[in-house]
Amino acid sequence: MVKQEFINASIKPLDSLDTLSPLEVSQLQKGAANNNLYHVFRQCSLAVLNTGSDIDNTADVLEMYKNFDVQIELKHQGVMLNLINAPVNAFVDGEIIVGIREHLFSVLRDLLYIGEELLQEHASQSASSNITNTVFQILRHANLLKPNIKPNLVVCWGGHSISRHEYNYSKLVGYQLGLRGLNICTGCGPGAMKGPMKGATIAHAKQRIENGRYIGLTEPGIIAAESPNPIVNELVIFPDIEKRLEAFVRLGHGIIVFPGGAGTAEEILYMLGILLHPKNQDIPYPFIFTGPAGSEAYFEQIDAFIKSTLGEAASDKYSIIVNDPNAVALAVQEKLQQVHAYRKDSGESFHFNWQLYIPKEFQEPFDPTHQAMAALNLHCDQQGYVLAAQLRRVMSGIVAGNVKEPSVKAIAAHGPYLLTGDAQLMSKMDDLLAAFVAQRRMKIDHEKYVPCYKIVR
Amino acid sequence: MVKQEFINASIKPLDSLDTLSPLEVSQLQKGAANNNLYHVFRQCSLAVLNTGSDIDNTADVLEMYKNFDVQIELKHQGVMLNLINAPVNAFVDGEIIVGIREHLFSVLRDLLYIGEELLQEHASQSASSNITNTVFQILRHANLLKPNIKPNLVVCWGGHSISRHEYNYSKLVGYQLGLRGLNICTGCGPGAMKGPMKGATIAHAKQRIENGRYIGLTEPGIIAAESPNPIVNELVIFPDIEKRLEAFVRLGHGIIVFPGGAGTAEEILYMLGILLHPKNQDIPYPFIFTGPAGSEAYFEQIDAFIKSTLGEAASDKYSIIVNDPNAVALAVQEKLQQVHAYRKDSGESFHFNWQLYIPKEFQEPFDPTHQAMAALNLHCDQQGYVLAAQLRRVMSGIVAGNVKEPSVKAIAAHGPYLLTGDAQLMSKMDDLLAAFVAQRRMKIDHEKYVPCYKIVR
Amino acid sequence: MVKQEFINASIKPLDSLDTLSPLEVSQLQKGAANNNLYHVFRQCSLAVLNTGSDIDNTADVLEMYKNFDVQIELKHQGVMLNLINAPVNAFVDGEIIVGIREHLFSVLRDLLYIGEELLQEHASQSASSNITNTVFQILRHANLLKPNIKPNLVVCWGGHSISRHEYNYSKLVGYQLGLRGLNICTGCGPGAMKGPMKGATIAHAKQRIENGRYIGLTEPGIIAAESPNPIVNELVIFPDIEKRLEAFVRLGHGIIVFPGGAGTAEEILYMLGILLHPKNQDIPYPFIFTGPAGSEAYFEQIDAFIKSTLGEAASDKYSIIVNDPNAVALAVQEKLQQVHAYRKDSGESFHFNWQLYIPKEFQEPFDPTHQAMAALNLHCDQQGYVLAAQLRRVMSGIVAGNVKEPSVKAIAAHGPYLLTGDAQLMSKMDDLLAAFVAQRRMKIDHEKYVPCYKIVR
Amino acid sequence: MVKQEFINASIKPLDSLDTLSPLEVSQLQKGAANNNLYHVFRQCSLAVLNTGSDIDNTADVLEMYKNFDVQIELKHQGVMLNLINAPVNAFVDGEIIVGIREHLFSVLRDLLYIGEELLQEHASQSASSNITNTVFQILRHANLLKPNIKPNLVVCWGGHSISRHEYNYSKLVGYQLGLRGLNICTGCGPGAMKGPMKGATIAHAKQRIENGRYIGLTEPGIIAAESPNPIVNELVIFPDIEKRLEAFVRLGHGIIVFPGGAGTAEEILYMLGILLHPKNQDIPYPFIFTGPAGSEAYFEQIDAFIKSTLGEAASDKYSIIVNDPNAVALAVQEKLQQVHAYRKDSGESFHFNWQLYIPKEFQEPFDPTHQAMAALNLHCDQQGYVLAAQLRRVMSGIVAGNVKEPSVKAIAAHGPYLLTGDAQLMSKMDDLLAAFVAQRRMKIDHEKYVPCYKIVR
Repeated sequence: MVKQEFINASIKPLDSLDTLSPLEVSQLQKGAANNNLYHVFRQCSLAVLNTGSDIDNTADVLEMYKNFDVQIELKHQGVMLNLINAPVNAFVDGEIIVGIREHLFSVLRDLLYIGEELLQEHASQSASSNITNTVFQILRHANLLKPNIKPNLVVCWGGHSISRHEYNYSKLVGYQLGLRGLNICTGCGPGAMKGPMKGATIAHAKQRIENGRYIGLTEPGIIAAESPNPIVNELVIFPDIEKRLEAFVRLGHGIIVFPGGAGTAEEILYMLGILLHPKNQDIPYPFIFTGPAGSEAYFEQIDAFIKSTLGEAASDKYSIIVNDPNAVALAVQEKLQQVHAYRKDSGESFHFNWQLYIPKEFQEPFDPTHQAMAALNLHCDQQGYVLAAQLRRVMSGIVAGNVKEPSVKAIAAHGPYLLTGDAQLMSKMDDLLAAFVAQRRMKIDHEKYVPCYKIVR
Repeated sequence: MVKQEFINASIKPLDSLDTLSPLEVSQLQKGAANNNLYHVFRQCSLAVLNTGSDIDNTADVLEMYKNFDVQIELKHQGVMLNLINAPVNAFVDGEIIVGIREHLFSVLRDLLYIGEELLQEHASQSASSNITNTVFQILRHANLLKPNIKPNLVVCWGGHSISRHEYNYSKLVGYQLGLRGLNICTGCGPGAMKGPMKGATIAHAKQRIENGRYIGLTEPGIIAAESPNPIVNELVIFPDIEKRLEAFVRLGHGIIVFPGGAGTAEEILYMLGILLHPKNQDIPYPFIFTGPAGSEAYFEQIDAFIKSTLGEAASDKYSIIVNDPNAVALAVQEKLQQVHAYRKDSGESFHFNWQLYIPKEFQEPFDPTHQAMAALNLHCDQQGYVLAAQLRRVMSGIVAGNVKEPSVKAIAAHGPYLLTGDAQLMSKMDDLLAAFVAQRRMKIDHEKYVPCYKIVR
Repeated sequence: MVKQEFINASIKPLDSLDTLSPLEVSQLQKGAANNNLYHVFRQCSLAVLNTGSDIDNTADVLEMYKNFDVQIELKHQGVMLNLINAPVNAFVDGEIIVGIREHLFSVLRDLLYIGEELLQEHASQSASSNITNTVFQILRHANLLKPNIKPNLVVCWGGHSISRHEYNYSKLVGYQLGLRGLNICTGCGPGAMKGPMKGATIAHAKQRIENGRYIGLTEPGIIAAESPNPIVNELVIFPDIEKRLEAFVRLGHGIIVFPGGAGTAEEILYMLGILLHPKNQDIPYPFIFTGPAGSEAYFEQIDAFIKSTLGEAASDKYSIIVNDPNAVALAVQEKLQQVHAYRKDSGESFHFNWQLYIPKEFQEPFDPTHQAMAALNLHCDQQGYVLAAQLRRVMSGIVAGNVKEPSVKAIAAHGPYLLTGDAQLMSKMDDLLAAFVAQRRMKIDHEKYVPCYKIVR
Repeated sequence: MVKQEFINASIKPLDSLDTLSPLEVSQLQKGAANNNLYHVFRQCSLAVLNTGSDIDNTADVLEMYKNFDVQIELKHQGVMLNLINAPVNAFVDGEIIVGIREHLFSVLRDLLYIGEELLQEHASQSASSNITNTVFQILRHANLLKPNIKPNLVVCWGGHSISRHEYNYSKLVGYQLGLRGLNICTGCGPGAMKGPMKGATIAHAKQRIENGRYIGLTEPGIIAAESPNPIVNELVIFPDIEKRLEAFVRLGHGIIVFPGGAGTAEEILYMLGILLHPKNQDIPYPFIFTGPAGSEAYFEQIDAFIKSTLGEAASDKYSIIVNDPNAVALAVQEKLQQVHAYRKDSGESFHFNWQLYIPKEFQEPFDPTHQAMAALNLHCDQQGYVLAAQLRRVMSGIVAGNVKEPSVKAIAAHGPYLLTGDAQLMSKMDDLLAAFVAQRRMKIDHEKYVPCYKIVR
């Protein structure tokens, strides 16, 4: 049977987004004074509509839907989105799936809110507290901050192209979390970002929890490759990857890491860097790595890499649990009691972790140009959290070099990134990345993969 | 790891069931004037708590939990259920799963309501309209009748011990139904009764349908073997299997049949008998048999059996769709439009199908004693619906002979049921039942199964 | 401007009452096997529709709307009430006021439920516990029992034809009760039954209490003269006046009495009789008489009458507060704390006062025939609660003789009721009733009132 | 009994306002960099707490509560308001009335949002569309814009010190509006701003309308003299009187004017000026003046003044209905049908009247200095809407001169405002204002009132 691939539709917003002003609408229209916002809007809308697709290469998606367009207009007493040549999978019998409709308007809501920032070429240098305030305000504006609720939000990190076996395991972990009334926050997309939500959905149904939260945090550079699953019922778009990471750790109350690739390694190094900072040493924060039987290798490698680069101080910050969803949930649950007690004692709110100190190295947007990558200080003789920040940037650059459009083009033009640093450190990093390829954990053509970086010895 | 197998707990009801009178409470207490109600209550409570267990032989369940007890008391301003030696699976970290708590109190609610009837040895002969009224009142009392809602309730029948492959297929069908806003009604238990609900739960989450209905209809004789899954959010206990069947066809708006065994055959024959009755010939009723690739054999056999016994008039009443969840959902959806139009035109309510004529042969409780089984009129020279009624009773008896406690005992004592009738008819039935055994579709030890019936030639 | 006085309309029920069976509908239809239920239904429906009218004489109402009819039918998938020649005041621009629509269907709900009982000429003698169970079941069926809520329901008794000044005072008391989150229960109708509800409505709005309860309890004999105000959001019809009184004292947590006439005196005597019973002596029950400055005379007379007939033991049961709404609310509030503590300590539910012992003398329906009135034992040498029961019946008979149709006719035919008893007691009663007439507190033509009783000396 | 007059209390916000950032909290603290916002916050908080007081002179209020303070702090996971020496009337048994608690946090919400603007001495000159956008954003931020709801919001203008008779009439009008499902918007305060809300509250209760809207729009300069009644369930503080007026006419769907003084005249002139503008001539807008029998004189004078100054073109814009609440509601209802049709036809939203053209003369904040008042162009030879704008400013200045603190001081220092213009026009205006004094319609000591203006001839 040949299926229709494209569909045209006009979509009305939910009431809460049906009160845009003409000024706001005009900012998102094609041909606006600054056309950039329209382009980001079109790209994010396409990503949201393309959910469930097997294609996860941004360029391929953009090529396949090159005739896609989204037009916003004020009509008949309200906002209307006209979708042209939209992916058919977003619809059932010609009707858009309601969760996807919500996502479209979450994109619209956030792009209008963060628009100013997006329009600037590079975010200006700003004080750390200002960046934190921005993260806070984006979350509040998106109505994600729910005060006075006992800590219950578990961030799940991990790869989006994990195996079926690992995916099923992540569902079981989500199910055990959901049975305990815990909510899920991920980075959107398939794999380890979707499994825990599906498991939690079934568990929440059994526990009659009607307001279960399935939060997705993303940013324009990544969303095309990791479309949010329609189960996500709270979606937020951040202006850059660093604010998204800050949102994870200030909004979430605990973190579970499933197997993944360079992106997951970036997230682990980000979190470790923060927890290593002396100002944060007393703040309890559940941080658990887990996977099913058969995936032990992954965590062994990560663990070894961390121990040999950042030391035991770093590896003390997390625990590893293999093949036991119930134990994972119990461990998280138990640590959340400590989080709860600590926040109460110290007068911290439950809805936003203001106390956590995030060094500026982790907040400033890192743009992985060849120059910036070459300038990274990859030597061991620096404070743990500073080294973690440098390593985080390496991983961030490699993700970009593999999948983000501008970086892929730059590498095609100028060759791989050149990295310099301590020989031993570089060697360990190379091993780790090679293992990711061997385990097929990166969103790349593993057969003919040519690394996007080169270590200069 | 050795797991604790039993747990004691005191359970408070939901508010809606916290207004029992002392009189009502006393009826359910051990040692009440008529102890029978307490015994049924204990057995149903155990079934509800034993959800998710692998043991589905009633006798084994009862043996394993022979020390289980449930005590009801009025205490601290309300009703309290004390569970003694309850299955540990119903609890998470010592807290009962909320869905199971609801089920316990649904049992309590229904047993109090139908108690009078249950206390009688055999339900008295009563007029057809009275039986229908009883079914209506049980459903209304359980708050299942939601008026003025467009027909959207799909009954799913099929085996509870189907293969993983068939189970996954039933999830996909449920998912497609759920995407279209349809609700699910089954007979409780695992397999084809659980799969569609899980699929629909995920789809309802994506469509932001917060009041999705997952209805389970059961009766005390079957519940122990088919524990309701906690996803079921509306559970009703009927006094006998015939009222439960009537509830399915009057409450539901369409029926999907997945592969199953003798119980599923009983349900198919019940529905066919009704649809064959001349008074019902104009009433539209979606009736679809479906299964994944690889399960065609099952429906071919059923179809052949129906055609050769009840004729084309019967086989016209259903359609068969293989391996296409989307097509199943579309076909149901389309037929539901006709149901909607017909009910509107004829002034019939949407919430209860009063119009459907159910011949008395299908309403009267059938007690499969050896005598009753031997007396069945299994000859072809009778009206289609009458023959269907007889065949339905054969299947009902075989289910009882396989799994229901009193019948199993009777057979152990007196040997298999003896069936007499037209030679050709008997032979076809024998083939069908043999095929169920060969396909391992019955809840029995297939290796050493000795049929519980014998055809007298 | 001449206003249209009558209106025809077809009314659909709320969903919760749209699931009647054909059998139920037929019971309420004109020309049903037993036509009595239809007549009661017509009369109660008229009363509900006639709200806000100035005419409060039952006979006049019935005469004015003699062409009124209500027809119930099953049509277009649901129940439909066709109103013929209905009072225009129940409608706004041709649309029935929603509160009145609710009342119509409350009448229908309760008459179907209590129908059996109403159809009998005289309720059969039944055990005290059975009567209490009936009261409980009527309340539960009407969904009035809300478990686990701290005692907060204040019954307000008093006359329906009080002065404007007294009416405004009752609003202020209701306002102070409402500010404290207390709910109101009355006997329906205007005056002291409406004022507290209006005051509480405004206070609840200020306190953002969205589920404020304004409960009206009535019975077919009184409803025509005391139409429920549409603010009443929970209306229940009881089969007789004694069950209604029992509902007041078992459902309510405290009682406030405003000035009134013989009906109010009946209620006071009912409550005093119960509180005087030795079994109830430890049960805390707020019982406060109050009125504005200028109404002191009323309570002085009542108080004097009680002291001289039932003694200090009786007058200790209540307190009198003049012209201080705030003090009334504070006193009730304070006593409710005791009620709360007592119920908790004694394991009594908050939603129904099972503990209160109600002697059979107060439960059995009293039919005030000439014979029954003459037979009352009005001598002082009996236990306090027994004498109170006798006096309660005197007042009940006088109310009936003044306003209830059958009694009015009987008196027209046979002359006034003859009462015999202790000379002193009779004299005091005569004084009290004369004072009611002098203060214009009875629903009669005060100018030419001829008492409906005569004391035989 | 001596009552305690002051109370200290710590108040927690509703959840929706419990997510302030430390930065925001610091802006409202005493001793912040710019102390002005704290002062406005303290003054508005006091106004909100002082509801129901008889004192309506701002200076007297401020003097009486000179020791009042409000301190904001972040504590125990959330925002806390500490009230010191607060008016006791805002509390019941030591607990703050919930409606008042809401108002306190509405003040906080709006002051943070409009803070920037308030901190500037004079709002900068800005484009008309920017002012409109600001009004829109304040309303949206306060969650007042409810899209897709049929026009149903009636603005009620009129005096806050009207007679009991006029007050009761305004309740009856509100009752008739409420019976028809209409919502109420006023300027806060007692009198004509409170009556319609109370009437509508009772009517909404009868119609079971649970989400009735009682909207109050105010600004810091007026709130102290016109405390919002706690029935107001949506309160918004605008930065200046012109934005508040714009909010009335863009948010509301129709306007009813009750008798009032100079402030009411200002509002009438504002609305007339807008409706007189050629661009608005086709836009339907219900505009009705009404009062009880006995108040005809008021509207006769206003009507005469308008006819003789702005002409029949202006008097065609409104209708006058005397003593007929039902007719008022019917007239509004009927015109709202036109509003509905017009908005649909022209594609205008229901929640904000973008179409209405508001000339810049009505948008720019008018600061009634002696100089500004003297410079007003009060000549007849200008376009109607321009003259209306000038006259509106006269009234605005007189209100300020009578009750607003800075203007009262300026007049004490420099004598009355001097007004110049056409002799006939000036004379009519003088007559009108004298009539207000004679009818005691101004918030002044009528016995010894010395006008705050002088007409220079």
